[in-house]
Amino acid sequence: MKQSMSTQAAGAEQRLKELRIELPPAPTPLGAYVEAVQSGTLLFLSGTLPVQGGEPKFLGRVGAELGVEDGRRAAQLAALNAIALARHHLGSLDKVKRVIRLGVLIAATTDFREHPKVADGASELLVSVFGPDKISTRLVFGVASLPLGLAVALEIILEIDA
Amino acid sequence: MKQSMSTQAAGAEQRLKELRIELPPAPTPLGAYVEAVQSGTLLFLSGTLPVQGGEPKFLGRVGAELGVEDGRRAAQLAALNAIALARHHLGSLDKVKRVIRLGVLIAATTDFREHPKVADGASELLVSVFGPDKISTRLVFGVASLPLGLAVALEIILEIDA
Amino acid sequence: MKQSMSTQAAGAEQRLKELRIELPPAPTPLGAYVEAVQSGTLLFLSGTLPVQGGEPKFLGRVGAELGVEDGRRAAQLAALNAIALARHHLGSLDKVKRVIRLGVLIAATTDFREHPKVADGASELLVSVFGPDKISTRLVFGVASLPLGLAVALEIILEIDA
Repeated sequence: MKQSMSTQAAGAEQRLKELRIELPPAPTPLGAYVEAVQSGTLLFLSGTLPVQGGEPKFLGRVGAELGVEDGRRAAQLAALNAIALARHHLGSLDKVKRVIRLGVLIAATTDFREHPKVADGASELLVSVFGPDKISTRLVFGVASLPLGLAVALEIILEIDA
Repeated sequence: MKQSMSTQAAGAEQRLKELRIELPPAPTPLGAYVEAVQSGTLLFLSGTLPVQGGEPKFLGRVGAELGVEDGRRAAQLAALNAIALARHHLGSLDKVKRVIRLGVLIAATTDFREHPKVADGASELLVSVFGPDKISTRLVFGVASLPLGLAVALEIILEIDA
Repeated sequence: MKQSMSTQAAGAEQRLKELRIELPPAPTPLGAYVEAVQSGTLLFLSGTLPVQGGEPKFLGRVGAELGVEDGRRAAQLAALNAIALARHHLGSLDKVKRVIRLGVLIAATTDFREHPKVADGASELLVSVFGPDKISTRLVFGVASLPLGLAVALEIILEIDA
């Protein structure tokens, strides 16, 4: 019970430690843009991808070369990169007041139907780290292709303390 | 003339009655997310779908299994669900100051071209209910596939009274 | 050096003159929506397309009928239309405090991989006009199809002076 209370009260940084999640280096741009822009209390992140140590992971389309479980793990890895990016920009994840919006773009076949299961790979990680009271809205869809041939890209808007 | 004046002055709730539109129950999440998040004066809605009574309607791609008119009706049904969601969250649609943004995602073939006609199914319903002074910006595109194999998904941001 | 300083200090209107860019007429809606909506300090633009003098340019998919360089030019033309739209709405581009977000939607084949190169066609023009200190976040993805069969659509959110 004590642990549950501490988890309730804990901020994202504390939760990250409890979950023994080690954040990778924040992603860097693939072109003429920046990774994060703050406007008032909104923090917009650039699309984050399932890339690890500078190498693309999870190449291909879900429903063809990749299955649902691959897609889930790709979404989770992209979310991990988004969390690393948010911390890099903010200094501390405890400044995140809310995950407002999560867009999950899945390189998928035309007859793929299980987009929500793939997207949950990202949603569940974000809920674990930021807490169930900071859960986001979500938009999920299957795209024709993504940069580098990757399977998933995430679009995230955070609310932060002013 | 009296009716026209009342329609002008009327809020969305009044207009809904005049149009004899009965709202369905608000949609519920298909995964680890919530249907609406408010941040300041912005209300972000999760993607809304052409679902009726818990059942998916309008399955397939526009340009293949479905025609433009099906797509229009799918967009209209998804918009109806978005309106139900906004009312469920806000208590009253009269709190909507503006529809800021409407994204219309259409599961479409690669050679489909009439996206604007499909999207108008959603836009026109939103204009009827919220009024021509609250008309939104719009982004429309054809995707490879959508959750459950549905034909349309909407992304909506509303401005509300603080 | 003097020119470089002036470019640094200059607003977007001055930069536009120095670059000898002549803006086309602002785009007009293809359906029941408006081209721009302001909410607080955010200016949302409707999807802008590679259309010139009312005529669609760059029809087809990148990776099939069109190559990367075509895609880049399509993205650049769509960005030019977005700039024209922002000026039409604001009166002066100097009111743009920041390009917050650029979404680049590319009608692309399923095996296309060079989305960032196409997107840079839009990003680089926006940086040239608004300045490197106003550079945006970015989300890039390949879609099945776009209105009129066009190759690129842009989604833009600007921050403006209140």
